[in-house]
Amino acid sequence: MIIGEVVGSVVATRKTDNMEGLPLRLVRKINIDNTPASSYVVAVDALGAAVGERVLVASGSPARQTKATDNRPVDAIIMAIVDTWQTNHEVRYSKSADLS
Amino acid sequence: MIIGEVVGSVVATRKTDNMEGLPLRLVRKINIDNTPASSYVVAVDALGAAVGERVLVASGSPARQTKATDNRPVDAIIMAIVDTWQTNHEVRYSKSADLS
Amino acid sequence: MIIGEVVGSVVATRKTDNMEGLPLRLVRKINIDNTPASSYVVAVDALGAAVGERVLVASGSPARQTKATDNRPVDAIIMAIVDTWQTNHEVRYSKSADLS
Amino acid sequence: MIIGEVVGSVVATRKTDNMEGLPLRLVRKINIDNTPASSYVVAVDALGAAVGERVLVASGSPARQTKATDNRPVDAIIMAIVDTWQTNHEVRYSKSADLS
Amino acid sequence: MIIGEVVGSVVATRKTDNMEGLPLRLVRKINIDNTPASSYVVAVDALGAAVGERVLVASGSPARQTKATDNRPVDAIIMAIVDTWQTNHEVRYSKSADLS
Repeated sequence: MIIGEVVGSVVATRKTDNMEGLPLRLVRKINIDNTPASSYVVAVDALGAAVGERVLVASGSPARQTKATDNRPVDAIIMAIVDTWQTNHEVRYSKSADLS
Repeated sequence: MIIGEVVGSVVATRKTDNMEGLPLRLVRKINIDNTPASSYVVAVDALGAAVGERVLVASGSPARQTKATDNRPVDAIIMAIVDTWQTNHEVRYSKSADLS
Repeated sequence: MIIGEVVGSVVATRKTDNMEGLPLRLVRKINIDNTPASSYVVAVDALGAAVGERVLVASGSPARQTKATDNRPVDAIIMAIVDTWQTNHEVRYSKSADLS
Repeated sequence: MIIGEVVGSVVATRKTDNMEGLPLRLVRKINIDNTPASSYVVAVDALGAAVGERVLVASGSPARQTKATDNRPVDAIIMAIVDTWQTNHEVRYSKSADLS
Repeated sequence: MIIGEVVGSVVATRKTDNMEGLPLRLVRKINIDNTPASSYVVAVDALGAAVGERVLVASGSPARQTKATDNRPVDAIIMAIVDTWQTNHEVRYSKSADLS
């Protein structure tokens, strides 16, 4: 998985049949030190993540391993909203600190 | 998924048996700010996307999760035509504005 | 899929059991404007593509979705030989022009 | 697989249903000569790897091929803790030397 | 598949249950002109490839399509040992020449 920041949404009315009702989020990749990277992905959001939240995105075939995405042409899913991460016992991001 | 712009088509008469009747589109990757990126992909188009439209492309094994691509050697599919996207509550692309 | 140019072949006599009889081609990636890119892939060729021809290569799990590659450890297949492609209604490559 | 160094952990309380109880580790990619690379991945850890240990990470659909990750939206797993590796008959990393 | 050179081995005693008995090789990617590239992969070796040999590596889900790797968390396998390859009818590598 990668860590990403939810930065926006995509709206699409013409879709393949089995894509109805799946919210699509724009997620920018985040580096380990919590700085933004240049790449992004459009991911299905089954958790209701808000703009500014850090999330985990699973890509490829594993993205279909949820009730919401089973048997759908989906290659990226937000499967967790991050509370905190640390490296070398130092906190790099904390949701409560970031959003307060 | 990635956001892409349909820029053209590919014609191929010699194909593996199970590839008949699937339109193949050239799709250039688009950055979040709606500028073109350098990479591209050839994707099956089951939606009839026109040149200039912004689309979502799913890659890898998930690309086979539609009736049109089931059990076919297809690693990229246009599974949505984008109406609009926004980042940080600002519209970055709107199909109606772009094509008018 | 990507567009590639067949530039050569690979010969290997020691292979896993289920790889017998599958021709292996060296395929260089081609940019949209028909110039060569730096990356390449070794792909199974079930169509008899010749050196110099432009082909479509499907990668990953979808590469196993043909009779020739079913249940084999193959992550890239030539699934079409390209006749022509165009971008913005302009022909970028035409097999008949290229090979005449 | 890639070789990585466990550098930290990610905590997430809001997850898709089937992600409960899977420890998530931050793993930095390591070059062959045992220097750190710039990329990282968040991987499920079923082995109890400690910070500083070198591990092997399998990505994509194969990451689901363990009891812990079966049918879960997981695209990266720590499937081995590395004791040592060598190139050209020279040891590049040895866990006992590194941690002593 | 990519062409690689076997440059070493990885030893790991703590592994997920189903990874016992699979030799793990360090494989450096090789360019078409037989020069070394910068990337590498750790691949399961079911063929007994020696250091210095050129091999083909299949990645992702297809790496599980052998008896040795079926149902295992393996994302890269050596599925062939290369004898020779050529581009534009010129030999770029020949095992007998290289190892003599």
